[in-house]
Amino acid sequence: MSDFSVKDCAHMARALRLAARGRYTAHPNPMVGCVLVNADEVVGTGWHRFTGAAHAEVNALREAGEKARGASVYVTLEPCSHDGKTPPCTEALINAGVGDIIVAMEDPNPDVDGGGLKLLRAAGLGVRTGLMAAAAAELNAGFVKRVTQRRPFVRLKIASSLDGAIAMQSGESQWITGPEARADVQRLRARSGAVMTGIGTVLADDPSLNVRAANIDTGGLQPLRVVLDSRMRMPLAAGMLTLPGTTLVFCTGKHDTAALHKAGAEVLSVADFEGHVDVRAVLRELANRGVNDVLVEAGPGLAGNLLERGLVDELVIYQAPHIMGSQTSGWIKTPSWTTLADRRSLIISDVRRVGADTRITASLAD
Amino acid sequence: MSDFSVKDCAHMARALRLAARGRYTAHPNPMVGCVLVNADEVVGTGWHRFTGAAHAEVNALREAGEKARGASVYVTLEPCSHDGKTPPCTEALINAGVGDIIVAMEDPNPDVDGGGLKLLRAAGLGVRTGLMAAAAAELNAGFVKRVTQRRPFVRLKIASSLDGAIAMQSGESQWITGPEARADVQRLRARSGAVMTGIGTVLADDPSLNVRAANIDTGGLQPLRVVLDSRMRMPLAAGMLTLPGTTLVFCTGKHDTAALHKAGAEVLSVADFEGHVDVRAVLRELANRGVNDVLVEAGPGLAGNLLERGLVDELVIYQAPHIMGSQTSGWIKTPSWTTLADRRSLIISDVRRVGADTRITASLAD
Repeated sequence: MSDFSVKDCAHMARALRLAARGRYTAHPNPMVGCVLVNADEVVGTGWHRFTGAAHAEVNALREAGEKARGASVYVTLEPCSHDGKTPPCTEALINAGVGDIIVAMEDPNPDVDGGGLKLLRAAGLGVRTGLMAAAAAELNAGFVKRVTQRRPFVRLKIASSLDGAIAMQSGESQWITGPEARADVQRLRARSGAVMTGIGTVLADDPSLNVRAANIDTGGLQPLRVVLDSRMRMPLAAGMLTLPGTTLVFCTGKHDTAALHKAGAEVLSVADFEGHVDVRAVLRELANRGVNDVLVEAGPGLAGNLLERGLVDELVIYQAPHIMGSQTSGWIKTPSWTTLADRRSLIISDVRRVGADTRITASLAD
Repeated sequence: MSDFSVKDCAHMARALRLAARGRYTAHPNPMVGCVLVNADEVVGTGWHRFTGAAHAEVNALREAGEKARGASVYVTLEPCSHDGKTPPCTEALINAGVGDIIVAMEDPNPDVDGGGLKLLRAAGLGVRTGLMAAAAAELNAGFVKRVTQRRPFVRLKIASSLDGAIAMQSGESQWITGPEARADVQRLRARSGAVMTGIGTVLADDPSLNVRAANIDTGGLQPLRVVLDSRMRMPLAAGMLTLPGTTLVFCTGKHDTAALHKAGAEVLSVADFEGHVDVRAVLRELANRGVNDVLVEAGPGLAGNLLERGLVDELVIYQAPHIMGSQTSGWIKTPSWTTLADRRSLIISDVRRVGADTRITASLAD
């Protein structure tokens, strides 16, 4: 890690804010932002909007024009050095004659292994790395997880009363949380490559699992809708099958899937784990399809199963200001957690009011 | 309500802060603060520390001396006009020759009925009321409730995991929350005239229910310890019986109480309600004894019973950053709440971090 000045920090913070503009559109690519500074003047800014569209560095170079010559480049992720859907950024930077480059985090893809930085150094550019690396890694937690672990980042959404209930024991249930919390969930969906639920929820609620808020611009993208349905009970009339985007149903064993295909779903049979679809196999498949972030909006069975198997990275809990008492069912079914030692510790990263509800964001501690 | 200036507000805010200094010592009296201002200069301040000690107004007059003449008096509660354990404050104010008086809230005691203000007006003093009345009423919520409704303010403390569990179904249990939360509970106890629990908690945990934090000065006061024990199972060896202060055991029906008396407890038999001590009768008795605030630290049975009967004024919930899952027991047993319509709405007044835990303070909405 090099030494950085206050000005360096300000420029990189701006690059990170630019990067975040791609939160609903850049995936499966990482979000990237870039700021070009020449003689203390910001001469170009850029961010990456869509897969296939120009990279952040190229957008910033375009804006800077001739002023890119000799400029310092602040970029949130190591520039690419390979020909992908767009020409490599390292080449563009070298050709533009920039002076030096400051990178928040190196490319996490083990195949890249600092290749972009090596090329830049070989071309005689000053290269410094590690400025605001933690913030850059957090911004792209899903992308980092996918390319390093071949699994997406799993975010589990819970909506409950303050005493942890999601429905009455009788099965009676309705929206527990308010309209602002539901609008907030639209943002969680929009930043996810996939939204996952269980067949029980589909049969009970016929959810859409799509992004439909008018104030969220996904550029037409919809998260992949994923239904875990070991015994293939997916109704042909499920509402989500009629919506733009793809519905992917995971089952186990062999089933006649022709009718469901025709109704609009893609169906994959995967391994069985204790009588259910093996969620590890599902996550592997989603990573292979380029899903960085999965939002789980599921009932207590699937939610508990993911937690018991240690597959949840983050919890987003909306607590309504109600108490529902003891004749209720809770968030999660965790039959294997029978002693206090089985409880899981959380690291709370954010608590805030969303309408009348409280939203708690937490990661699993171990 | 009169018109008030910004200076009026600043002086009354100071009087309220002074009043709050009595939070651990003034009860059963209300907390009261007083500020004397002469020609824009604060010439005297006072607050009420102990029953039997000087009232806030008298302390402020003493500090002001001759400068009280013609001064404006800011006081958080209508000055008393009756001879109690100390001479009436109205007389002292009139004798000191103060100019006018600004009162946050009138005495809530229906027997007083503005008597103090009438005397002051009759003596020719300008009297204005209602400045920061809501804050003054909130400060003395327990006192106000006792004198207007003959019931104390009931504050229910809960310590649970984030998913609402307090123990494993096996009965396995331990401190769920951290040391900072437990220190915070010491402050809740210190501001309460009584701490109440059920016999189940006594038998399981042998709690002390006392104030023992070195940094809390109650001037030697301890809250009355109240145990609800319909069938008189209170152990003679219960730890709380050996501590300074009084332990009051409520039972139903007739029991031989000689041994428990000798062990240090006071015992009262009250009405039965559905097989348990009638908590309404208990609260009435506590109000008669001058208890303004009751802190309930109880298991799910008593806590649920109080909520079902609509007797809880405020919840203070400490949520530990853990999830404990489904093989657990929850906060409260509420067998009568069987439909969603039975749930109770909360008004959350404060959410903050206490150590690693989150403390939520909420009142019941209806």
